[in-house]
Amino acid sequence: MPTRTLSDSLAFFVARKLHGALGAPEICFALPDGRSVGPEEGAVASVHFQDARAPLALAFDPQLAFGDLFVAGRIRVEGSLVDLLCVTNDFPADVGLRSRLGGRIRPPASWRQALGRATRNARHHYDAGNEFYALWLDERMVYTCAYFETPGMSLEEAQVAKLDLVCRKLRLRPEQRVLELGAGWGALALHMARAYGARVRAFNVAQEQVAWAREQAEKQGLASRVEFVLDDWRNATGRYDAFASVGMLEHVGPGHYAELGRVIDRSLAPDGLGFVHTIGRSQPHPLNRWIAKRVFPNAHPPALSEMMRIFEPRDFAVLDVENLRRQYALTAQHWLDRYRANRRLIAERVREETARAFELYLAGTVAAFRSATLSLYQVVFTRARNDAIPWTRADLYRA
Amino acid sequence: MPTRTLSDSLAFFVARKLHGALGAPEICFALPDGRSVGPEEGAVASVHFQDARAPLALAFDPQLAFGDLFVAGRIRVEGSLVDLLCVTNDFPADVGLRSRLGGRIRPPASWRQALGRATRNARHHYDAGNEFYALWLDERMVYTCAYFETPGMSLEEAQVAKLDLVCRKLRLRPEQRVLELGAGWGALALHMARAYGARVRAFNVAQEQVAWAREQAEKQGLASRVEFVLDDWRNATGRYDAFASVGMLEHVGPGHYAELGRVIDRSLAPDGLGFVHTIGRSQPHPLNRWIAKRVFPNAHPPALSEMMRIFEPRDFAVLDVENLRRQYALTAQHWLDRYRANRRLIAERVREETARAFELYLAGTVAAFRSATLSLYQVVFTRARNDAIPWTRADLYRA
Repeated sequence: MPTRTLSDSLAFFVARKLHGALGAPEICFALPDGRSVGPEEGAVASVHFQDARAPLALAFDPQLAFGDLFVAGRIRVEGSLVDLLCVTNDFPADVGLRSRLGGRIRPPASWRQALGRATRNARHHYDAGNEFYALWLDERMVYTCAYFETPGMSLEEAQVAKLDLVCRKLRLRPEQRVLELGAGWGALALHMARAYGARVRAFNVAQEQVAWAREQAEKQGLASRVEFVLDDWRNATGRYDAFASVGMLEHVGPGHYAELGRVIDRSLAPDGLGFVHTIGRSQPHPLNRWIAKRVFPNAHPPALSEMMRIFEPRDFAVLDVENLRRQYALTAQHWLDRYRANRRLIAERVREETARAFELYLAGTVAAFRSATLSLYQVVFTRARNDAIPWTRADLYRA
Repeated sequence: MPTRTLSDSLAFFVARKLHGALGAPEICFALPDGRSVGPEEGAVASVHFQDARAPLALAFDPQLAFGDLFVAGRIRVEGSLVDLLCVTNDFPADVGLRSRLGGRIRPPASWRQALGRATRNARHHYDAGNEFYALWLDERMVYTCAYFETPGMSLEEAQVAKLDLVCRKLRLRPEQRVLELGAGWGALALHMARAYGARVRAFNVAQEQVAWAREQAEKQGLASRVEFVLDDWRNATGRYDAFASVGMLEHVGPGHYAELGRVIDRSLAPDGLGFVHTIGRSQPHPLNRWIAKRVFPNAHPPALSEMMRIFEPRDFAVLDVENLRRQYALTAQHWLDRYRANRRLIAERVREETARAFELYLAGTVAAFRSATLSLYQVVFTRARNDAIPWTRADLYRA
C-alpha cells in the first residue's frame, strides 16, 4: 500500500463529497493515488484527476472547473467524452463550494491563474482564424444547425438543405431585398442571391468572416447582389422584403430583444416575412458556466417565452416555430468527427489548450442537444395584419 | 326642420364625442332625429341608433354596449356587419365613461336590465341545443378552426382535413391510447379511432354534446374504441401515448395553465406526443368585453408567451407551432354564411335576441381573425428528452 499524503486524503474526501452532491452520477472519479469514487464497472466514463488539487477545483465550481481542468490537462477522460458530457452538462451550477460560500471566498489566485491561462485563447471564439474552422465545418463554412432530410445525408448536403429551407420558409422570390443580421461566413446570403435571385444586405461584426464572405461573393459573381457590411446589427437601415437571422440571437441577450424587435420593425416591409434561427431552451435557464465564461461570453439561449419579447411588444405574429434539436445533435457530431479526424492539423495551427477547449466545446454541443439541455428554434413571423401569408406549409415540402 | 328634444341634442353631443374618442373610425353614427356623425360617403357601415339613449349606453362601455345594443335591436347596422366589426373589434375598452369614472358610477339599473335581459340567453353558449348548431356547423359538428388545403375546399372537407392534420401531427398509430380534453361533439376522437385505429378517452363537461358523441360512436361501431367521459379535465386519470386538446384552452384561463401542465405530465407516456389547438393572440390582451361577458364567460385567448406556462415549468419541449389565423377567418365565414342561409329555421328554434347575438358573434369571429385581433395556434410538444420524435415535418405533407 503506498503512503498517502494529507493532500491525497483531502482529494479523496472532497471527491466523495462532490460525487454525492452531484447526485452520484454514473461517472468514476479516479484519483492520482489510485483510489476512485463512483462505479468502476458500468460507468459512462472515467474522469482521471492528474493532481490532488484538481478535485478541490472541481468542487469549487463544477460547471466552470470541469472545462478548465480538462483544457489545462489536469483531468483526462477515459471512455466517451460525449456520453460523459451528457451527464456533466447537467451538473447543477450551485452545488459547488463557490455558491455555498455565497461568493464571499474566491479560490487562490494561483488556481485562477492556472485555470484562466489555459482557456484565454478560446475566449475570442473566432480569433482562431478561418482556416481553423475550415478544418471541421462544411465547405460553405456554415456554423449553425444543418437540416438533414434523412440522417444519412452528408454535412455538405444538409447545410445546403438548411440554407434552402430558410429561403423556402421566407418564400423568397427573385429581386426581393433581404436584411440578414449575423451573417457568419456568408453562406446564407450567397445562397439567397444565387438560388433565389434575391438582393441581400448582410451584417456581421467579425472582420475575418466578412473578408472571407466578400471574397466568396466576388468569386461566385454575386458581389452586385450581396453586400456584406462590417457593422453592428443595430446600425442596419433601409426597408426590406424579408428579414433573416441565423445563429445570432444566442449572442444578443434578452436585454436587447426589445431593441432587436425595433430594428426589425423599422426594416421590414408591411407584407414582409421574417425568420429567426437560434439555439434555445425548453425552459428558461442560464447557460453552462464554462461555455458562458470561456467560449461564448454573454451568450443566452432563450426559451420560447423569452424569445416572444422580440415579437409580442411589436404586434408581429409568429406564424411557424420548428424545433430542430435532434438535427443539431447530428450537425455537431459531424463537426466533432471532422475535428477529431483533423486533430493533427489542428495541433499545428493552434495551441494545445485551444485545441482541447474546442474539442470539449464540440463534444459538449453534441451532448447538450442529445440530452435536450438545448433546443434549436426556427421561427417565421410577420406583421400581425399581413394577409400575404401562405395558406398552408405544404409548399415547404413539395419535392 | 323638426323640433328636437333635449335628449336628441344630448344624443348628438355624446355621439360626436364618442366618435372622436374612438379615433374617428370610418363608421357613420345615424341618430333617430335624422342627424349623423362620421362619414356618410365611403363609410364601412352605418350604425343606426333606434333611440336617443342608445348612444349614451355605447359611450358608457363601447365594447360591451355595442353587442348588447345590437342584440336588443337598439342599433341596426347597414352595410357589412363583418367589415363594421373589423373596426369595432378594435374599439378600445377604456374609452368609455365607465372607465373614465373609474368604475365608481354604474349605469342606471333600468339600462343594465334592458341590456342584460336580451343576451342572458346567449350566456350559456351550448344551451341552444345540438340542433341549433347543426344548422350552421359541418355534418360532423366540428366547432373549431378547419384546415382548408386550398381556399376552395368545402367546410365538410376542410374539417376532415383538420381532423386528419391533428392525427398526422401526433403521428398517431394503430392501438395507441389517446387522452382528449375538451371533446366537443366528438368528431376528433371518432376520426382517431376510425381512420387511425386509436383508442381514445375523451373528456367533456357539456352533457348534450357527450350524449350526441356517444350516439355517434354507437352508430359508427366505434363505442369499444372511444369512451366519452362526462367530467372535468382535471379528473383525467391513466397513462396515454398521445394527448390532444382542440378548442378547450381558450376556456381554461391562464390561472389554470400550470394545473393543465400537471395533468398532461401525469398522463403522457415518456415518448408520447401532445397537441394543443387554441385561439390565441399575437400579444397578451384581454378578450373583447361583450364576448367575455355574454358569449364565453372567463375565456382568454393566450399569447404564445402565456401559453408557454403550460409547457416550460414541466420540461416539455415545444416541437412545432403553426398559426392558422386565415384558416379560422374562412372557417367562421362558412359558419356565418350557413347561419344566415338558415336564419328562418334558426328564428323558429331560438329567441330573436339569441339569434341576433349568435349572428353578431359569428360575424365578430370572422372580423377578429380577418383583422388579426385573434390568431389560431396549433402546438405539438413532447417531453424534452424524448428522441422518438420525427426527423422533419415532411411526413405531414406527403400526398
